[in-house]
Amino acid sequence: MAHKLTHLSAVELARLVRTKEASPVEVVEAHLAAIQKINPAVNAFCTVAAEKALVWAREAERAVKKSAKLKPLHGVPVAIKDLTLTADIRTTFGSTLFRDHVPTEDAEVVRRLKAAGAIVLGKTNTPEFGAGANTVNKVFGATRNPWNTALSASGSTGGGAAALAARMAPLAEGSDFAGSLRTPAAFCGVVGLRTTAGLVPKHPAEMPWHDQSVAGPMARSAEDCALLLDAMTGLSGKSPLSAPAPWRSAREAVAKARSLRGLRLAYAPDIAGIGVDEEIERVCRTAARDLRDADGAALEEIEFSLSDGRDAFLALRGEAMVGNHFDRLERIGELGDNLAGNIRAGLALTISEIARAERKRAEIWHRWRALFERYDALLTPTTAVAPFPVEMNYPEVVEGRRMQYYIDWIGPTFLVSLAALPAASVPAGLTAARLPVGLQIVGPRFSEPMILTVAKFTEEAHPIGLPPNCA
Amino acid sequence: MAHKLTHLSAVELARLVRTKEASPVEVVEAHLAAIQKINPAVNAFCTVAAEKALVWAREAERAVKKSAKLKPLHGVPVAIKDLTLTADIRTTFGSTLFRDHVPTEDAEVVRRLKAAGAIVLGKTNTPEFGAGANTVNKVFGATRNPWNTALSASGSTGGGAAALAARMAPLAEGSDFAGSLRTPAAFCGVVGLRTTAGLVPKHPAEMPWHDQSVAGPMARSAEDCALLLDAMTGLSGKSPLSAPAPWRSAREAVAKARSLRGLRLAYAPDIAGIGVDEEIERVCRTAARDLRDADGAALEEIEFSLSDGRDAFLALRGEAMVGNHFDRLERIGELGDNLAGNIRAGLALTISEIARAERKRAEIWHRWRALFERYDALLTPTTAVAPFPVEMNYPEVVEGRRMQYYIDWIGPTFLVSLAALPAASVPAGLTAARLPVGLQIVGPRFSEPMILTVAKFTEEAHPIGLPPNCA
Repeated sequence: MAHKLTHLSAVELARLVRTKEASPVEVVEAHLAAIQKINPAVNAFCTVAAEKALVWAREAERAVKKSAKLKPLHGVPVAIKDLTLTADIRTTFGSTLFRDHVPTEDAEVVRRLKAAGAIVLGKTNTPEFGAGANTVNKVFGATRNPWNTALSASGSTGGGAAALAARMAPLAEGSDFAGSLRTPAAFCGVVGLRTTAGLVPKHPAEMPWHDQSVAGPMARSAEDCALLLDAMTGLSGKSPLSAPAPWRSAREAVAKARSLRGLRLAYAPDIAGIGVDEEIERVCRTAARDLRDADGAALEEIEFSLSDGRDAFLALRGEAMVGNHFDRLERIGELGDNLAGNIRAGLALTISEIARAERKRAEIWHRWRALFERYDALLTPTTAVAPFPVEMNYPEVVEGRRMQYYIDWIGPTFLVSLAALPAASVPAGLTAARLPVGLQIVGPRFSEPMILTVAKFTEEAHPIGLPPNCA
Repeated sequence: MAHKLTHLSAVELARLVRTKEASPVEVVEAHLAAIQKINPAVNAFCTVAAEKALVWAREAERAVKKSAKLKPLHGVPVAIKDLTLTADIRTTFGSTLFRDHVPTEDAEVVRRLKAAGAIVLGKTNTPEFGAGANTVNKVFGATRNPWNTALSASGSTGGGAAALAARMAPLAEGSDFAGSLRTPAAFCGVVGLRTTAGLVPKHPAEMPWHDQSVAGPMARSAEDCALLLDAMTGLSGKSPLSAPAPWRSAREAVAKARSLRGLRLAYAPDIAGIGVDEEIERVCRTAARDLRDADGAALEEIEFSLSDGRDAFLALRGEAMVGNHFDRLERIGELGDNLAGNIRAGLALTISEIARAERKRAEIWHRWRALFERYDALLTPTTAVAPFPVEMNYPEVVEGRRMQYYIDWIGPTFLVSLAALPAASVPAGLTAARLPVGLQIVGPRFSEPMILTVAKFTEEAHPIGLPPNCA
């Protein structure tokens, strides 16, 4: 039973708890056992809150026994990214500066997940302050890809994605600035959703108005992702970007969809103009065509390039990095090279360069807007490359072209962030080397239920099975 | 009848059109006649679209005769600020650079007002690109205060506020960055509502993500303001800040409120720490106490100061000015002194100064947030001074203290904008010199129906009557 529990969906776990077929303690114990067994090889969890999780599980079990009114995530375990504050559980941000930092309060998203009945298992690994698309830091080392532990899980929610893929957690909370919920989902074969800014309240936040950096859900299926999203959303007085969701339940919308009839989809192979691995492109294009052939969506294969948005993204990211780290500017030397370099580049910007970037950002937004007047969603490969060796900071060459900068290879995701749009990555198949391929689905603001519905049909048509050693 | 029509509320005009007691043509003709008579002395309208308005009025009349389904603002005239694009109606932004500019398309807010049945009367005067809290520019000269035409109507929606006060329009569209919907409402004795960013879609916009600059309604009563707001709100795919309203009808919420019982209000005399005219402070405090004594609200009189937010607001305003005018930086010499000075100050900023301002902004937001955990709304004088001579750029001295900068005197409104909160100004009474006094009501995000409900009880308790020569 314990083995089986870690292979179930969050939706199914919640149902089993509700019907008393599984107890929260059993569920949590099964996941803690999986962590004990698998985590040493993967390093997805950097901090495991085993004792606390068991205390919460016993509380949840008492509520079940008393037949109290149960919450949507009652007794379902969740992994929290180590950038997100957890009361009484160490939160390092992947930085030696915060090696022993234990917050006194939960972030608002954690408070909401607990209020929805979820049980926090522990913290998942991330690059220092999330700066990087490979999950490695000086506090905990590298997270490895469960599909091949010699390879990267990507980042910055690499720990969360690896924990899901390796069946150590059914749900994972994460965040996304340049692609951090999508590229790890692609590399690890799970579903990650970048949300519309304001849908999931960010609190506390150094820069509470920054709308390119958002919190969001990650899971092994689109429906589980929607279940987790529902627990995260809703107007909050704690965040100056918070907005109400215009739907009642994303999960119901995803669960009840029976076809994609009436949806207008577009597929574009390379929105960043950096080239895309031929095998990845073929897997993604095939998945897109199957949504037309099997599920009734209209599909057009188009060219859509936003490569001219790159410099604007980098400039605005530099400005945000200065704001985020404003109170430790004199300690730049203690930060890792990626982050220190970002901050120095940010400090060197002029107001004119920021203004140019903001205007370019507006232009890019309007190109997305015009696209969404013709199509409901855009499909494109989440990453241009398959998982690379974990020791590399980034893939230095993509399709024969040398990358200039350590995040250039994630152009396909950061050009979505530049416009602050919601987008999911969903498994679309495997490469010949049995590595997951992610298809990115981008929609207009507040289109999460539609995006996750397209993701559901994609994943159902292309089941990728289990990573090795997780069967 | 014509005379009477211009003295009715928008709610009443819409009802008369619906019941066929007044025709849209009669209504529009009455307002055009008032403009012809009164505008020369006030200069509220800079462009009157008389012919177009009559064409639209006749169309609206045909719809009434055919008993077509009528829209909420069917046949009700509205004045549009000259910063807001109107198709085929000159839109100058108050700048000689755009003296003869005739847009080909309506701004989204204008499109919505027309779709709701409203009839555009023309454009209302504004300082150049809205930069200033006195309405004067080189294209059209100064707008004068209907209560005393030697005095300022404030700005930047000065034309809109003066048009309402002088019974030349029942509704006015406007915008607010530092106080532009509130200070003119205060000076002219009408109701202006700064909205939550994203509630009213801004399109087109040079800087579509800028959340301190918002569109909003202005009217002679809180209920009319809510009626206009309802026609402006709703999720739009055209703006990257757009969010759905969490209520069905602001107007219904305002109309049905019978008391303020259960509401927790705070009154603070001087949130900007610039001092406040003794008579204005007394009128506002009395109005606040009446909401407790007559209408059942709980009221606490508190000290609440955000004066340390001033430099952050000015820095972020400078940055936004550079972004807004990025494509005419080489033409700074052709702009007025206020605006050119703003842009030059913006260009001189460093990224560190912007980061410091963003962090201060976040701190100020959290002080507001903590306030709104204890109170539903904060009441405070909208302006520290009564209307000043129209020839002055700004009041150089407030309560004996010399102002450093041309917008320092509107600290009480821009410190609300800094946190991007919604706020209304409502007439709270008259000074001994028979000049209107505005009470500012500030609430948390998406609290517009509550704010306008407080405004309704305030205005009902303190009717200010008509400006001279408008009876």
